[in-house]
Amino acid sequence: MTAAALFEGVVHGRAAVQRRAIAKAITLLESTRAEHRAQADELLTALLPHTGTAFRLGISGTPGVGKSTFIEALGLHLIGLGHRVAVLAVDPSSSVSGGAILGDKTRMERLSVHEKAYIRPSPSSGTLGGVAEKTREAMLVCEAAGHDLLIVETVGVGQSELAVAGMTDMFVLMQLPHAGDELQAIKKGVMEWADLVLINKADTDPHAATQAQAQIRSSLRLPGQHGRPENARHGALWQPLVLQVSALQGQGVDRFCAAVAQFRALQTANGQLVARRERQALAWMWERIDAGLARAFREHPQVKSLLPRMQADVVAGRVAASTAARTLLLAQATTE
Amino acid sequence: MTAAALFEGVVHGRAAVQRRAIAKAITLLESTRAEHRAQADELLTALLPHTGTAFRLGISGTPGVGKSTFIEALGLHLIGLGHRVAVLAVDPSSSVSGGAILGDKTRMERLSVHEKAYIRPSPSSGTLGGVAEKTREAMLVCEAAGHDLLIVETVGVGQSELAVAGMTDMFVLMQLPHAGDELQAIKKGVMEWADLVLINKADTDPHAATQAQAQIRSSLRLPGQHGRPENARHGALWQPLVLQVSALQGQGVDRFCAAVAQFRALQTANGQLVARRERQALAWMWERIDAGLARAFREHPQVKSLLPRMQADVVAGRVAASTAARTLLLAQATTE
Repeated sequence: MTAAALFEGVVHGRAAVQRRAIAKAITLLESTRAEHRAQADELLTALLPHTGTAFRLGISGTPGVGKSTFIEALGLHLIGLGHRVAVLAVDPSSSVSGGAILGDKTRMERLSVHEKAYIRPSPSSGTLGGVAEKTREAMLVCEAAGHDLLIVETVGVGQSELAVAGMTDMFVLMQLPHAGDELQAIKKGVMEWADLVLINKADTDPHAATQAQAQIRSSLRLPGQHGRPENARHGALWQPLVLQVSALQGQGVDRFCAAVAQFRALQTANGQLVARRERQALAWMWERIDAGLARAFREHPQVKSLLPRMQADVVAGRVAASTAARTLLLAQATTE
Repeated sequence: MTAAALFEGVVHGRAAVQRRAIAKAITLLESTRAEHRAQADELLTALLPHTGTAFRLGISGTPGVGKSTFIEALGLHLIGLGHRVAVLAVDPSSSVSGGAILGDKTRMERLSVHEKAYIRPSPSSGTLGGVAEKTREAMLVCEAAGHDLLIVETVGVGQSELAVAGMTDMFVLMQLPHAGDELQAIKKGVMEWADLVLINKADTDPHAATQAQAQIRSSLRLPGQHGRPENARHGALWQPLVLQVSALQGQGVDRFCAAVAQFRALQTANGQLVARRERQALAWMWERIDAGLARAFREHPQVKSLLPRMQADVVAGRVAASTAARTLLLAQATTE
């Protein structure tokens, strides 16, 4: 299928035709074959004018926090309000395990079969940077196909949360109603990225949930958290919220949606939505450039042949690390 | 002065001669002029066999926590035990302000004039990566000159703490005896890097200090903090300590030194000291390679001429970030 045919199917296709075109387009974008890459770039460039109006919601939380249950409840609620919802995943472990637990359709039984929803598991190969890039591109496909609410989920481990916060308009952190968990998130610095913290399963321990809510609220109010100068240019700033929900009981989903709408309205009015997307797009470009430079360097024949000895010399303390770096850089530059 | 002459002065010079040679060697290593770089690499390679036995101690804390007072007390105490002490600084703000507050000799009046001590302020130009590289290299000079205890200080802001933790054998975080501060450190994830946390000025508020000590201890015991698999290979592992001191009164300095000695003995016995240095050296090499690749990319004529339009297209949503990245990478690769 050509890029033009895929474009037609994604943007103008109906029902099953569109669904198949979305899947094929994403598969093309995920391909690592060089001849597919030119086609993929052609498709991306064609799709771009049809993107930009959807809202991009990132949701993170450790395994067991109830992400799938919440996303299914949220997705069905939003569809009820007339939206079309796409769910994508960034799974840092999928490159190791080969399987993708996140975005697993069997975990979202009702949402996955809904004609107004599209669910795509995590790309199952590549580095985290590669997986994140594929997910960003898949997001553009879903958006061009008319999905106006994009949900990107990830697990609360490692760098994947940063990657998801860096590709969405609003980043939501899900927590359980016990101490420890939120302290972990505070400790890892992830809390700083949250626009909203959800305490799920609040009904299982209302007292703990209320305590956790107060604790997280106070941690979010620490100096240094808000009022970054870059944010202070346009009017009022968003103050992160901490809400209690019970996804299994469907409690709090409407309150959450109201908070998202409020966030979106404020960020649009104060210019932060546009500013954030511009920053994200440039950061994404530079991240891909850095990754490309690193790959080309490691694959350079002269570097490849020098590297093992250089690394051994550095580890053994025979050559300073900065000297080794300069030697290798020079080897690449002078033999190209 | 040739690299060979500088080497002689640094390694075999006496008193004032050696002191001058150290200063000149560090100045040479800090030079960004291309013709100095070859000389600098020659000097570094010659000095390396004379390094590796000193202990490298990183000390971080927000302004006002009492770093200088503590380092002076510690340095004089160590000199009293027969050591030679060098104090270096990584100041992330020095590239902006041009001045270096850290490692300022006027703040360590007694230590700075001691013949067994050498104090060097932060390199005052370049990116944080550049400043860190210069400090690493200066550390090697001081070590080759016979300083067996190297202290690298930094302020508790931004990435500089990670840089210092990544160039030292033991990373110490200084805190004040009030809540808030240590929560900040926990939040930023810096606490995870600390091998030891010092609560300074404990005498000004003994109750708060004891409370902070308990709070930090409990946060350091959270799951995920210890028992990383890579650390579990050789015997007993270090458990981070939280100590109270009062640098101004000289209280707790001997207890701190005992803890450092304990840490060093354990890390030597379980193989972690060597493993950490090997990891640091390789990470340092790759960091300098990445920085060099990024610089060469940005300075490439074809990239320079394409970049403004590409960035504008990406920001405006006309070209996908990944497409722009590939276009720029191709432009560099095909016109070299």
